[in-house]
Order: sequence, then C-alpha cells, then structure tokens
Amino acid sequence: MGLIVQKFGGSSVADAEGLKRVASRIVATKKSGHQVVVVVSAMGDTTDELIDLANQVSPLPNGRELDMLLTAGERISMALLAMAISNLGHEARSFTGSQAGIITTSTHGKARVIDVTPGRIQEALKEGAIAIVAGFQGVSQDTNDITTLGRGGSDTTAVALAAALEADVCEIYTDVDGIFSADPRVVPAAKKLSTVTYDEMLELAASGAKVLHLRCVEYARRFDLPIHVRSSFSNKEGTWVVKDHPEGGEMEAAIIAGIAHDKSEAKVTIVGVPDRAGMAAAIFQAIADADINIDMIVQNVSAAATGLTDISFTLPKTEGANATAVLKRIQGEIGFASIQYDDQIGKLSLIGAGMRSHPGVTATFFACLSESGVNIEMISTSEIRISIVCRSSDLEKGVKAAHTAFDLDADQIEAVVYGGSGR
Amino acid sequence: MGLIVQKFGGSSVADAEGLKRVASRIVATKKSGHQVVVVVSAMGDTTDELIDLANQVSPLPNGRELDMLLTAGERISMALLAMAISNLGHEARSFTGSQAGIITTSTHGKARVIDVTPGRIQEALKEGAIAIVAGFQGVSQDTNDITTLGRGGSDTTAVALAAALEADVCEIYTDVDGIFSADPRVVPAAKKLSTVTYDEMLELAASGAKVLHLRCVEYARRFDLPIHVRSSFSNKEGTWVVKDHPEGGEMEAAIIAGIAHDKSEAKVTIVGVPDRAGMAAAIFQAIADADINIDMIVQNVSAAATGLTDISFTLPKTEGANATAVLKRIQGEIGFASIQYDDQIGKLSLIGAGMRSHPGVTATFFACLSESGVNIEMISTSEIRISIVCRSSDLEKGVKAAHTAFDLDADQIEAVVYGGSGR
Repeated sequence: MGLIVQKFGGSSVADAEGLKRVASRIVATKKSGHQVVVVVSAMGDTTDELIDLANQVSPLPNGRELDMLLTAGERISMALLAMAISNLGHEARSFTGSQAGIITTSTHGKARVIDVTPGRIQEALKEGAIAIVAGFQGVSQDTNDITTLGRGGSDTTAVALAAALEADVCEIYTDVDGIFSADPRVVPAAKKLSTVTYDEMLELAASGAKVLHLRCVEYARRFDLPIHVRSSFSNKEGTWVVKDHPEGGEMEAAIIAGIAHDKSEAKVTIVGVPDRAGMAAAIFQAIADADINIDMIVQNVSAAATGLTDISFTLPKTEGANATAVLKRIQGEIGFASIQYDDQIGKLSLIGAGMRSHPGVTATFFACLSESGVNIEMISTSEIRISIVCRSSDLEKGVKAAHTAFDLDADQIEAVVYGGSGR
Repeated sequence: MGLIVQKFGGSSVADAEGLKRVASRIVATKKSGHQVVVVVSAMGDTTDELIDLANQVSPLPNGRELDMLLTAGERISMALLAMAISNLGHEARSFTGSQAGIITTSTHGKARVIDVTPGRIQEALKEGAIAIVAGFQGVSQDTNDITTLGRGGSDTTAVALAAALEADVCEIYTDVDGIFSADPRVVPAAKKLSTVTYDEMLELAASGAKVLHLRCVEYARRFDLPIHVRSSFSNKEGTWVVKDHPEGGEMEAAIIAGIAHDKSEAKVTIVGVPDRAGMAAAIFQAIADADINIDMIVQNVSAAATGLTDISFTLPKTEGANATAVLKRIQGEIGFASIQYDDQIGKLSLIGAGMRSHPGVTATFFACLSESGVNIEMISTSEIRISIVCRSSDLEKGVKAAHTAFDLDADQIEAVVYGGSGR
C-alpha cells in the first residue's frame, strides 16, 4: 500500500460526466489499496470565463482580487468531485490551497510555493478519506491573502504536495497518453516515451512541449519524485519522468529522447551596434529591467571596416511590442542604427541525455535539415539540447526530417488525442 | 463620520452593470466620510446553478461539500465588486466569511453564527480601505470547515458584522423601496413604512413578508442595531427597523403597521383523536422528532357523545408529505380515524405594536372579512399579531379589505418594484 497523488486538469472535469468518470478512476485507485490525494483544476473554461468577467468590471483588475476570484474555479470543481466520490460510497473531503497548507510568496498571479504543511490532508488520509485539493492556489505567508501559482500551477501543486507527503508517485492525468518523441499532430509516427529524465523534461518543456509545467518538473527533480504522465481516458501506462533512464532499458541506446518545436517566439535584430565593450550589457540590462524574458542570443562577428555589429535575440511574441519600445528608448544612448522585428520564425529543439556521449548529433541534425531545405538562422545548445531557429513555414518539415533522421519513427501510429468535451 | 455596513443581494449584482452601479453607490458612501463594510451575496442565479451542478453528480450531495461549493458564489461576486471599486480609485479588499471572522456552528447548510472576530476587517478599515465580505458563509468553530447560514443568510452576516463592529447602521439594499403596509403586488395602495419595530418586523417576517430574513431581525433586536431597508436602484429613504417607533411620529397613532399574507402553508387535520391526556403531546412529539416546523394549531371542542376530537395544524407545504407519513406511522398507536390534507389555504396576518392598547382590532378585522365574504377557518394571535386562515382563493380579497378597514391605503400609489436584470 502506497500513497498516490493524482492530478486532473480542467478538460478531464469539464462537466458532470467528466467529474463522474474521474471519480470512478480515483475510487479504483483507492480500492486497489492506496491512500489517494487528488489535485484538481477548475472545470473546463471556468478560469477564462472568470477573467472575462473581471475585465468587464475593470480594465486592470487588482492582483489580490483577481486571485480571490480565480480560486473560486477550483473550489467548485473540488467540491463537485468530492460529492461524486461520496456518491460512489467512498468518503472524500475537499480542501482549498490554504487548508491544504500550500504556503506561497505574496506575488499575486505568479506566487511561488515556499512551504507545504499538509496537516489536514494527513489527518483525512489517516481517517481513511480521499483528500481532494484545489490546484493552482495557496495562501501567502506574509499577508495571509489567497494567491495563485500562475497558469499550469496545478501541476506544481500536485508535485509539491506529493513531495511533502512523501508520496510514491505523482500521476499527472492529461488528454494524451504521455510524452511523445515529437508532437503527434506534426509527426504522426511519434512514439510514446516510456521514460524521460528530469533534465530532458525540463529542456522539452522549455523548448515548447506543453504537457508538463516547467516549475513542476523543477520541483520533482529537487525532491527526486517520480511523475507518471498518463491519459485520463485510458488505463494505458504513460510516461515516467524520473532521475535516470533505467539501466539496460531501451533508452540506454537512444541518443535523442524527443523533438520539441515552438512557434510562439519572435526574433529581434538590433542592427549596427557599435562594437565596444559594455554595449551588449547595456542593451540586455534595459530588457531585463522591463521584466522581459529572452531566449536565444546571437551576436554577429563585427565587420572590421565599420566597427559595427548586429545582435539578434528571440523572445515570446507577447513581449515583442514591449521590447521594441524599450530598445527605441535607448537607441540614442547606445547609438545603433535600427531595429528589425520578425515574428515569422520557428524554433526546433533536439533533446536527449545521450547527446553528452555522442558527438555526431549536431552534424546529423544539420545535414538532415539541409537535405530537406530548411535554412538555419540561429543556433543555441546546452549539454543535452540543440536548438535552431528557422522560418516558421519550414518548422514542421524540419521536425519530421529530424524525427526520421534520429530513428525515432514508430513502426505504427500510436498517438491518440482524446477529446474530452469539445476541448 | 460613522461606520456603515451595506448589504447587497444577488439581484443587485447580477451582472457587470449591476456590480458597477453598486460600486458607485459604495464609493459615494465612502466619499461622504463614512467607513464602509459591504456584505454581498452571490451574483444573480449563481447559487441555483451550483446546486443544479451538484445534483448532476450526486442525488444527495454531502453537506460539507455542498457548503464548499456554494461559497464559491460569493467569492466571485465579492472579488468582482472589489475590482469595480478599485477601478473607481478607491481601495477595496474582499474577505471570505472565514477571513472576516464569522464563526459558526458546524451544521452544514444552516449553521448559526456563534461569534464574530472581525480583526482583518478592522485592520482594513483602519488603513482606509473599503472591506467587502462574502455573505451567507462562515467557518465552523469545531471542525474549521466552511459553513453556510442557509438561504437569506447574507442578511444575517450583515447584521452580525454590524453588531460586532458597533456600526451605526446596517443598510439592507433590495429591489423595493422598503417595507410596505402590504405586498404592493396585491394592494397597489400599500404605503411604504418609515419605521417598524423589531417585534413587528419579526411578526411580519414570520407571517410571510419576504423582505428581511427572520434570523437577521432577531440578531438586530438582540444588539439593538438599526436596520435601514432601502432600494439599490434609488436614493430614497427606505424603512428603518428599530426598537421603538419615534415618539410623536406618525406611527404613534397607527394601530396596525402592516398586513402580511402567505400561500406557502398547508393544513393537516387529524380526525377522531381520542380525547385523552397526552394524545396531542404524542402527536406533536412525533412531528417534532421528524424535524418538521409547524405554525398554527387548533383543537376542536370534544364531542361529549363520542369522546373524540379533531386537531388541525398548519405547516409549510414542502413538509406536507413528510408530516403525513409520520402521522400514518403512529395512527395505530394513537388510534385516530383519518388524516385530511388541504393545501388550498392562505394565511392573513395583521401586525402592529399599537394592537396592545387597542382592544377593538379583532372585531374590526373579523367584521371586514365577513363583509367581503371571506370565511375564517383558523385563528391564532400573539400580543401584536392576529392571523387567520382562509381559502387561498379568498386571500387577496381579505388583504385588500383589511388594508382599507385599518385606514392604511396611501393617497397615491407609491410602490415601485425595480427590475434588476430580468429577476
């Protein structure tokens, strides 16, 4: 008998039918002899609907009050889920983030978990009940106000609770069967991975794979907590996110775990920057002061004749206008010629812990891109990742070519995306 | 400068427009130099919609979880109201019942307030903010679980908070201009009352007037807290609910404050009860054990020849089936002949503190009913109330006749029922 934390997202509990289906699955886990803690998100589109209401009464809603508002969403789903479980003859008690002891910083809208004191959850478990916990929310240590962890924060709630309760596993239920070697919508032959390491998952999440939230993987790695990503629509084994690939397992041989792609970024090029010490620092300090996250940076070799260079960087498209405005403000001070903004780019990343010991990966990757006519515009690497930027229109072609080149294609198509309730 | 508690019901905050209108009114009160605490109900039909969802997942939802679910309603309205106020340039902070220190018993669905510890509210007021508090909800002293006070409980929250904060007045905003001498939909010439006493208001509420919740009036009487019932759609003075009518005021002369009517009750008659000591006690003990509230009771004079009597009582129609079942179960033991159930009755009540010193009221009342052809089936009196039961079809005729007989008709029609948003 172990302790299992199960997390269900909004699309799994979008309506009464979904709630009942999830309730049955939870009861089945309980019946098989485990203690069960469930973390649940708000139903379907509830969060978006609440944000819409907020915008109707205020163009810039107060952060404290927006958190108070949004946390009503999980309150509704968790109480309904507890009722649905009771209806199957098992005791279930729901707890808000605050009641579950999710203690956070006081940054409304993107609070960070700083402590977990799950006394009431442990008490409920000891009394034989199933504990249902509101995802995405906590209570601020300093102000005692209700906070939220940002979009996708329910994954973080689940992992943080699992770590604090020393659970055997944190199961993240989703509408796909697990983590795939590439996005199955782009590469129909994508394979479900049986395991990925925390490091690979972090790189995958940072490179555009949407299945798991970055912070939740960081948290799991810190506490060495296994995550099992699986479908809420089937009983199939999903993908285990763990510290190392199992020895002697199939992954031992694989160099590349997966391929991620991302069309959400844009590229900014600053043309004609004087090639003097401190220029790049001044530019990126101004960008950082405006709280803009940037991703890749490339600086051209300076042209000896002019003493000028170009600097390019990528950033989320949503930050584009903001960054351009910041740069215009410092143009006189820095003395660069112009700014070019390009939102027609795509990023393609190869990720794999095996890359460390296989020096030929870059060559194979670039060769396959070249053969399929994909032009590389920027390159960035980490120990277990290679990312390139290309035209957004070439991106899917590149993903397919790399998937084949690294021998990731499955013998048969196995990916199924389950449709919850119209989402 | 004083402290004012304002309570707004669900129809006043049914949509974004309503929330903004209420926000303006709150800000106006704040600007006029008062400290303001606002108690708000769930928006429009939210509570009914949540109950509907609960019934979709469970035929008999668990009480603890139903309270958890329903309290999401005020969480949404209070956060939105705080945002709407912020948008007008004034600081507002919302608080759940638990955060506001509304401590209750642990009877889910109908908890009673046992203590109010409004430390966080006082702190917010001291810092110049407007405090917005969720109506209808609290936290159980014993279990730390979220509780609700039952339908109409937001009025009780407002009065309990006002008493604990030693507010100058508790303003209850509604969609009519105040308390009327009769229901304006039945008696178009009904007059708005400038004052009613707590005792009169209790009798009015118990007799079918729907404007104020019975428990909130009891609470106000206990703490001698003035309630001002007024319209959220106009700035007119409403009705003050106070300890005594002002000396020398218009009410000094009035014998009858108002007339209430109620079609929600049914009459049960137990025919042929053996006229022995303990029979009535046994019957009403069985009814009480089933948690059924009864209203009026009449026992006929026993027929000497048979030694049998009839006992009639009234009760909410919703309890009718339950009561009949209980009585059938004890029929053998008690030995009565049969049960008659009649749900076509109406109750008409005259209420007025002046009744105490005017012995002719009953005679005038019965005469006017007789003249208008209304047959009296049951009678019940208190120190400041006379109630009769008649055919439900005769009820409105009786209300109008009594309103005229006691000289309550206004010179011109003044009642306006404001339409919020389709409610």
